[in-house]
Amino acid sequence: MQEKAEQARSEVVVAALREALGPAVVSLPADFAGRRHADSSRMPCAEPIALLRPRTTEQVSTALRICHAHQQSVVTQGGLTGLAGGACMLGGEVALSLELMNAIEEIDPVSATMTVQAGVPLQAVQEAADAAGFMFPLDLGARGSATVGGNLGTNAGGNRVIRYGMMREQALDVEAVLADGSVVGGLRKMIKNNTGYDLKDLLIGSEGTLGVMTRAVLRLRPKPRAVSTAWCGLPDYESVTTLLRLAQERLPAGVSAFEVMWPGYYDFVLATLTELRAPLAGRHAFYVLLESSGADPEGQAAVFESFLGEMLESGTLDDAALAANESHAAAFWAIRDAPGEYGRFLPGRVSFDVSFAVAQVGVAAQHCEARLREQFPDARILIYGHLGDGNLHIVVQEPDWPASASAEVKRIVYGVTGELNGSVSAEHGIGTKKLEVLALSRTPAELAAMRAVKAALDPRGILNPGKIFVSSSERSS
Amino acid sequence: MQEKAEQARSEVVVAALREALGPAVVSLPADFAGRRHADSSRMPCAEPIALLRPRTTEQVSTALRICHAHQQSVVTQGGLTGLAGGACMLGGEVALSLELMNAIEEIDPVSATMTVQAGVPLQAVQEAADAAGFMFPLDLGARGSATVGGNLGTNAGGNRVIRYGMMREQALDVEAVLADGSVVGGLRKMIKNNTGYDLKDLLIGSEGTLGVMTRAVLRLRPKPRAVSTAWCGLPDYESVTTLLRLAQERLPAGVSAFEVMWPGYYDFVLATLTELRAPLAGRHAFYVLLESSGADPEGQAAVFESFLGEMLESGTLDDAALAANESHAAAFWAIRDAPGEYGRFLPGRVSFDVSFAVAQVGVAAQHCEARLREQFPDARILIYGHLGDGNLHIVVQEPDWPASASAEVKRIVYGVTGELNGSVSAEHGIGTKKLEVLALSRTPAELAAMRAVKAALDPRGILNPGKIFVSSSERSS
Repeated sequence: MQEKAEQARSEVVVAALREALGPAVVSLPADFAGRRHADSSRMPCAEPIALLRPRTTEQVSTALRICHAHQQSVVTQGGLTGLAGGACMLGGEVALSLELMNAIEEIDPVSATMTVQAGVPLQAVQEAADAAGFMFPLDLGARGSATVGGNLGTNAGGNRVIRYGMMREQALDVEAVLADGSVVGGLRKMIKNNTGYDLKDLLIGSEGTLGVMTRAVLRLRPKPRAVSTAWCGLPDYESVTTLLRLAQERLPAGVSAFEVMWPGYYDFVLATLTELRAPLAGRHAFYVLLESSGADPEGQAAVFESFLGEMLESGTLDDAALAANESHAAAFWAIRDAPGEYGRFLPGRVSFDVSFAVAQVGVAAQHCEARLREQFPDARILIYGHLGDGNLHIVVQEPDWPASASAEVKRIVYGVTGELNGSVSAEHGIGTKKLEVLALSRTPAELAAMRAVKAALDPRGILNPGKIFVSSSERSS
Repeated sequence: MQEKAEQARSEVVVAALREALGPAVVSLPADFAGRRHADSSRMPCAEPIALLRPRTTEQVSTALRICHAHQQSVVTQGGLTGLAGGACMLGGEVALSLELMNAIEEIDPVSATMTVQAGVPLQAVQEAADAAGFMFPLDLGARGSATVGGNLGTNAGGNRVIRYGMMREQALDVEAVLADGSVVGGLRKMIKNNTGYDLKDLLIGSEGTLGVMTRAVLRLRPKPRAVSTAWCGLPDYESVTTLLRLAQERLPAGVSAFEVMWPGYYDFVLATLTELRAPLAGRHAFYVLLESSGADPEGQAAVFESFLGEMLESGTLDDAALAANESHAAAFWAIRDAPGEYGRFLPGRVSFDVSFAVAQVGVAAQHCEARLREQFPDARILIYGHLGDGNLHIVVQEPDWPASASAEVKRIVYGVTGELNGSVSAEHGIGTKKLEVLALSRTPAELAAMRAVKAALDPRGILNPGKIFVSSSERSS
């Protein structure tokens, strides 16, 4: 009976959407059968009752106004490369894809800004910035498909956060449509703007639960003229943090990447991806890919080299290889970028994206590894991360482990994360995948405050319900 | 009759506060008679019905719980150096001063963080960071009195925003007590933490209207080992933006300050503060104080000097003086820091803190000056700012102008700000001083969203009522 009523309601709202926006914008299941709606999280994903592909902010506004009136839930989708299930449908939702709003509207070289629509792929932004003599620093493996809207929705991170910050710091303003169809954000190009609450940073990282971001003003950076890269072997964790601090203090161009790899990761990657070559002879307790990008090709290279020499002399480094050219540097990065190949050789893996105070990362890794090893003596345990940001990635896999193993692995790693006051999601977001563990990183008072904000901006709970947390309106219904 | 009821209610709530927290925390008007409660905004300020000086987060929580129960409004106060009236009392409020919560609780050199209580003065943070081998980059003239809590409440800016960002980017986490006494924020030290909504950035800059920030984890930066400073004279605004862009691209340590001064400011300051000396002979269309701070004393200085040479050769610069030592640099900065002396020689001035896209700053200044000059042919019009951030300060004064002039001056400058899609408050906040002009920089939908957030987190409207905007609960009462 209830199901029938629900079906009738769906038909009414889809008809209203078709009526207002036309079939070019609103397609029905028959039209998009077989189209992929799931993201990269490997979470279950239902089919939407309709797929909206608006071309303007006004169309997004119209769509939400109708959905709001009918209490119809909406899942906003970008490039579908998310890892936490934030763009998955739980059943009964309308999918709102920004894929046709993919224009770069303006590059303002004097203000060093780029105004874009949310559906533009990250790589297109990077390339347009480059062509205009700038750099857009956000970078991640899925750059070809991931969109700016998705990067905004999840507050994406990546390899260069240590120097340039997360997506929040790359956006000067965002335009967004709120649940009731009202439009906020004025595409302002100012770095300083203290006029009331920070709606921009509230919307960024809200994973589609507070509004649909439609356009953004991105901040462009000067293009580095020289990149210095080294592969380092270190004797212990203290040396790793010493290297980080001294590199930040002494390298004229600062540190643009500081990627740490534990030996389990390094050994596994080199043994598995046989096309890769070891940059150093011998084994070390830790490996670091150190990169410094700046404006002064000659001066920077000389200081970088003498800095490495000093670090070797003082014993902070066991050994180091300096990239003599771009292809050397690319070979170093290929070792760090091996996770892009996991699909081929690590079936059934459990992956983590956690963060800690930098001073705690070493002990966190140690605890996780020891406790995992106790329960799963034969498991592959790969640990690596962006140390400057406290961000640790942990991947655990065993070829033939029982179905129950995954839950136990999560219990162990998230347990350590909670104990050490870490974050259960450093850069991937919560989506549906981390719903259950969010409370390890957020107090009940914080969750209550988030729910209050959600209820205030989306009182009918139509925007991406069931993501991040179960909102108060959903709980009461 | 209503006044009597209000008086009785006040007495009840003050008695409850005294009962719960004791007279050492809660003082009465008789105890603090003559004490200064006004901030630096020159706005009218009433006396509070009681002054609370808690020593712990728990005491703040108890205080707010009681105020919430009695619907008693509360104004949080830091160092009282605010320029927008955010810490002023309108009448009938309790003042909550964080002055006794002024400890530096921890410095974690490995994580490069400092955990502090909100009442610690900015300068104490800077000095402790320096002693620990780091830098805390936020800096502003009132550093000796301004507190971290006030810097957080207003999202303070200052001279180094171009390199390090506003206060939001200096805080990794904040602990805050919400209106109902609940405590949010876990003093986490992570740069990356994508676990739900960004409550931190929502609280920062909310001017005491969403919560009382009690502690914070601040991010420390590597201490620069070398500072290069130059005073530049330029022929036109295009040259100013060219210099900015090329300096950001080519200086190995980037740009740590880019302060632009229009000739009206320069001439007035040198004529008035006769102890200052002109760094360059001759007059120029624009003056720029350029600073680059980095890690490589020799390399940096050489590139800085040759960069200035190139800029002179290409005609981007008319003339330039390089600071040969720290006292030269201090002499340059003294010209830029002259606003600290306005109290002595610019009575009755009207001051603005506005921002624009960098590409619009020049035309904004031009429009403001032309329209002001038309109405006030004899006025002093001083224009200067942090160009890299689009932040313009405009000061207008005439010795004997009529009382009506101030409103007309504001109408002109804010009019231009609205027309050019600028911000009516770049770094000072809204407080009570800019209540009326907020709508020039924020749309009705944005103000509605802010009001909804306010009502969600402070449903009884007790936190700093009448600041930023008239909240919905106040409107309905």
